[in-house]
Amino acid sequence: MPAASLITLLTDFGVQDTYVAQMKGVILGLNPNATIVDVTHAIAPQDVFHGAICFDEAFDAFPPGTIHVVVVDPGVGSARRRIGVELGGQRFVGPDNGLLSLVARRYPVRRVHELVASQFHRQPVSPTFHGRDIFSPVAAYWSLGEDLSHFGPPVDSSLVELQAPKITRFEHEIVGQIIAIDRFGNLISNITQSDLPSDSTELVTQIAGRRLQGLNQFYAQQPHGAVLVLLSSGGRLEIARNGGSASQILQVGIGERVHVSWHVA
Amino acid sequence: MPAASLITLLTDFGVQDTYVAQMKGVILGLNPNATIVDVTHAIAPQDVFHGAICFDEAFDAFPPGTIHVVVVDPGVGSARRRIGVELGGQRFVGPDNGLLSLVARRYPVRRVHELVASQFHRQPVSPTFHGRDIFSPVAAYWSLGEDLSHFGPPVDSSLVELQAPKITRFEHEIVGQIIAIDRFGNLISNITQSDLPSDSTELVTQIAGRRLQGLNQFYAQQPHGAVLVLLSSGGRLEIARNGGSASQILQVGIGERVHVSWHVA
Amino acid sequence: MPAASLITLLTDFGVQDTYVAQMKGVILGLNPNATIVDVTHAIAPQDVFHGAICFDEAFDAFPPGTIHVVVVDPGVGSARRRIGVELGGQRFVGPDNGLLSLVARRYPVRRVHELVASQFHRQPVSPTFHGRDIFSPVAAYWSLGEDLSHFGPPVDSSLVELQAPKITRFEHEIVGQIIAIDRFGNLISNITQSDLPSDSTELVTQIAGRRLQGLNQFYAQQPHGAVLVLLSSGGRLEIARNGGSASQILQVGIGERVHVSWHVA
Repeated sequence: MPAASLITLLTDFGVQDTYVAQMKGVILGLNPNATIVDVTHAIAPQDVFHGAICFDEAFDAFPPGTIHVVVVDPGVGSARRRIGVELGGQRFVGPDNGLLSLVARRYPVRRVHELVASQFHRQPVSPTFHGRDIFSPVAAYWSLGEDLSHFGPPVDSSLVELQAPKITRFEHEIVGQIIAIDRFGNLISNITQSDLPSDSTELVTQIAGRRLQGLNQFYAQQPHGAVLVLLSSGGRLEIARNGGSASQILQVGIGERVHVSWHVA
Repeated sequence: MPAASLITLLTDFGVQDTYVAQMKGVILGLNPNATIVDVTHAIAPQDVFHGAICFDEAFDAFPPGTIHVVVVDPGVGSARRRIGVELGGQRFVGPDNGLLSLVARRYPVRRVHELVASQFHRQPVSPTFHGRDIFSPVAAYWSLGEDLSHFGPPVDSSLVELQAPKITRFEHEIVGQIIAIDRFGNLISNITQSDLPSDSTELVTQIAGRRLQGLNQFYAQQPHGAVLVLLSSGGRLEIARNGGSASQILQVGIGERVHVSWHVA
Repeated sequence: MPAASLITLLTDFGVQDTYVAQMKGVILGLNPNATIVDVTHAIAPQDVFHGAICFDEAFDAFPPGTIHVVVVDPGVGSARRRIGVELGGQRFVGPDNGLLSLVARRYPVRRVHELVASQFHRQPVSPTFHGRDIFSPVAAYWSLGEDLSHFGPPVDSSLVELQAPKITRFEHEIVGQIIAIDRFGNLISNITQSDLPSDSTELVTQIAGRRLQGLNQFYAQQPHGAVLVLLSSGGRLEIARNGGSASQILQVGIGERVHVSWHVA
């Protein structure tokens, strides 16, 4: 199963420093055949929820067996658990601080082990860089066929869960909020396709005083410069602007309220 | 031919979001042995011409058989064609919107097929993310040995061409413009080596009110801080500053006129 | 020895342009099985000392045999030497301008050869892009098993050394300075663990008018928002802020003086 050697990295380390490279050096020193993919290293420093969103967004694009090393870890060195998890046919290595909150809503957690077996850690372990000294070598050994159980004992699978922004449902409407803004200024909400009625042609979306009619398929469906609503590539309600930035023209940031209503036939 | 598994990505997606990682996950899920190289993801959002320049700049450094996935695609989801192309011994996958404009001036287009065979697409296809759901899987299958003809029917090879900034030629002079500025503030023009006389020691370059004598080989050939003219590593007339940024000191941006003249022996 | 195919790149090229990608294309064209890792490309333009620090920081995380292509090269094209070096069980390819200054203090330089054998260079060699045309192909051939001696004659191993910021030692105190600031705003000094007394619980660190007691193990050991002192993951004295940026709150930049004193039992 060659996909077993696919390891991804998702951190808040940025790429101007050498932290990410050090993780890769450790992984490739143990498994020279590993293929490493950067999911993103631009998570806002110590913003665990942002990490959880990006992990959830990327998850389904990866093949079975993929090992995701996810390190947004303000508590590094303290008592928070370090875990290896199997879920959705893929694998997670990182701190137990909520990074799995969103993915674990979609896929049941199969196995959780606490990563305490020090023979799989790089010695000496830096108290401030478990990404390099614990999570990376564990991922490398895991990709080499070592069983999860060797890295430490099983622990109860009730993981730390983040308080994610809630959506409020009424009979013919729903209120959510913007949880991410991408490079293009597209506004991604916490409302997903399954929250909407199956016949959604009559949707009315309200945000920042604007009233937007209907649900589009793609950007160029509306005139250049128009603000429009569609489903994002991750299946979320998205407010975009054809040929521009919705975030900029609406002056909207993360946390902005989105109100969606519809008629019933 | 191992180079057949070399796939590059060139997009305007940036790397703060997970879009690029999702493309990689899809490719590696289909071809775990693919080697993926990022050409750049910093194309200005939806700036197709910028994408065409970067693609042209990078092309010659890659080996025969390389598959380039190039996605700067403001028309995603609309009627623009999606194509696979063979040219210059390498391969292109992306929208037919002008991204090939510059490379295709240097290498004849050999084959063009329209990528409509949906069994090679990731299902369901997101109308806003053909990079992940159409171009990436097609590139992966192509790298596995599938023939271009399987992805869809051949189409006429008259591709969409961008109106590139023209250069004007006189008897002993030429007028072009700045088409790119790199990280160092080097100003790259649309004037290439072949536009200049073979004996070019007598060149006079004028830009932003400055008059620059001669054509240098490298930056350190002039005193620290001096503005100078040379041929870029891509074979274009470049205005640079030794130990600094020409863009900053000349206060020059993309589109600035460059005038070059010479004497005849 | 599969690690022999591990090649890293460390440059000041940034990733918005295609320079780094061109280097990768050249390497993979010669050795399709090479694994390439980006150490960082965010070195401040032409800041050789910054490059030397990052190279030193990353070095120990990489396995024996790794080939590091390090290109921060303001003198490209001029008379500075281009060298291949073996030290610390790993390998360096780049200009002889001080990039090895820090690593070479920790590991003796074993062999140094000048890279003049043009049959291993990409032709024609651009006078402004030796990274692509000389250093990358040499690294690729080296990774394929070619001996260092084939790339050019041995030269004396007295490499160019940068004047690194010195530390001043007194009986019970030491004065150093900040040499790097990472993405989190952590202040990294030139004082290393070996400069400190082995019993360092009584340390007092002074910086920017602040007086910081003790040496911590990790960030969360102090209250949220507190400024603290610890050893960085690279073994250097670091001033950090739990849950924030020390650089921002102390208004401190590179070059700031750090004063450390201790009592003797």
